Amino acid sequence: MSNGGKALGRVWTAALIVIGDEILSGRTQDRNIAQVATWLNVQGIRLNEVRVVPDIEEAIIGAVNALRTSHDYCFTTGGIGPTHDDITVDAVAKALGVAVVVHPEARAILERYYVDKGGLNEGRLRMARVPEGAALIPNRMSGAPGIRIGNLFLMAGVPHIAAQMLDALTGQLKGGRPLVSVTIGAFAPESEVAELLHRAERSTEGVAIGSYPFFKDGRVGANFVVRSENEAVAEQVAGELSEALESAGFAAVAGGI
Amino acid sequence: MSNGGKALGRVWTAALIVIGDEILSGRTQDRNIAQVATWLNVQGIRLNEVRVVPDIEEAIIGAVNALRTSHDYCFTTGGIGPTHDDITVDAVAKALGVAVVVHPEARAILERYYVDKGGLNEGRLRMARVPEGAALIPNRMSGAPGIRIGNLFLMAGVPHIAAQMLDALTGQLKGGRPLVSVTIGAFAPESEVAELLHRAERSTEGVAIGSYPFFKDGRVGANFVVRSENEAVAEQVAGELSEALESAGFAAVAGGI
Repeated sequence: MSNGGKALGRVWTAALIVIGDEILSGRTQDRNIAQVATWLNVQGIRLNEVRVVPDIEEAIIGAVNALRTSHDYCFTTGGIGPTHDDITVDAVAKALGVAVVVHPEARAILERYYVDKGGLNEGRLRMARVPEGAALIPNRMSGAPGIRIGNLFLMAGVPHIAAQMLDALTGQLKGGRPLVSVTIGAFAPESEVAELLHRAERSTEGVAIGSYPFFKDGRVGANFVVRSENEAVAEQVAGELSEALESAGFAAVAGGI
Repeated sequence: MSNGGKALGRVWTAALIVIGDEILSGRTQDRNIAQVATWLNVQGIRLNEVRVVPDIEEAIIGAVNALRTSHDYCFTTGGIGPTHDDITVDAVAKALGVAVVVHPEARAILERYYVDKGGLNEGRLRMARVPEGAALIPNRMSGAPGIRIGNLFLMAGVPHIAAQMLDALTGQLKGGRPLVSVTIGAFAPESEVAELLHRAERSTEGVAIGSYPFFKDGRVGANFVVRSENEAVAEQVAGELSEALESAGFAAVAGGI
């Protein structure tokens, strides 16, 4: 992960822990993986691993300790609300070996937010609890803030609240060059162009090509995604791939199908 | 995980490894987690953990070896197609310490499937490669089979092909009692009913209650999901929870909002 102090080319990495029985039971379709991934990419940070874990303290502690030490940043979604199944703060505090405290600013935010909604109660006050030493991540949507401690970022599970928290963090984290992707689509069966793709990928250093098949209007095709930190290189390899596809008899569609 | 040989109440667990850069880049919205979770639940198997890993051999090997040993079953999706970025078979073979061989039945299936589509080529033949000792999982959709070896099940990444493979496995795996869930919705802010929920959960052994907030028509509410292996118990606790919500001034909607 270290690059010996050279700023150029340093790859910044992140992991995401999605916390919640509702994802593992299939009840709720996760939206946070794609949302966090897309946002991280714009920050120049690469999402390297995701784990989905249940609302069980040891499972959260295990994932937090495995991932916060192996990546530059570690995000979590879920489990920071007011109910008994919201145990992320307690689990993270245990993982870090620190106490849980009421954050005065979070308490003040919640008091203001609930002033004409019945005031604070035990459940609402839970949302002011943080691992000792934490800072807050603003949440304009529903009052209760996210939490930042060390390289850990604890966010809401509700996707549009998580989006607000990501928005508040935009530009705040050190990152490298965003990964640029150029997509080409073709009604070409993957299995007929596999060798051609492999050649295109090997042609240039620092380029990865992903191949994603689809079925559309009764026809088989695939989108080919050329990824690189260097936009000019990605464009060049994509151009060469387009030509190779055309030569093989497949019309290439810039931007994908 | 062991229950000392008692068949009754044995909880069968599974893990899922989603393999693919396209999920971690945010390009593709994952659909397999919810699909596999829902299917497992019907088989009486509990999905305990999901990991999303990139198309990197060591990452796949690490996840496979961590999860196949800690759960009854381990499923993977993605990376079993014909292209250079499809490396699941090689990674799993390395994880298990076995060779990669061409499965004669898989080869015959692919020869038949491609007979009027140009026949087999190097890329297509890749899809007949399996870790030595593996059996096949039928795929009526697109020929190329899934792969079963030990407690590992390697499936396609394209969700409707993965669905076909799950369908072929239905009823084949040992499982326990499916987890039953009963949902109640209310326009009740979670933060006002947190204590009431906690009481309802603690009231009965073997019941978990999840609370999932929503915003609808400008109002705040939540769905409360009562989960148990015993349907009668889930119904009873849900009924008591409904009454408690009504007493607190919130109309409870059976089935959720």
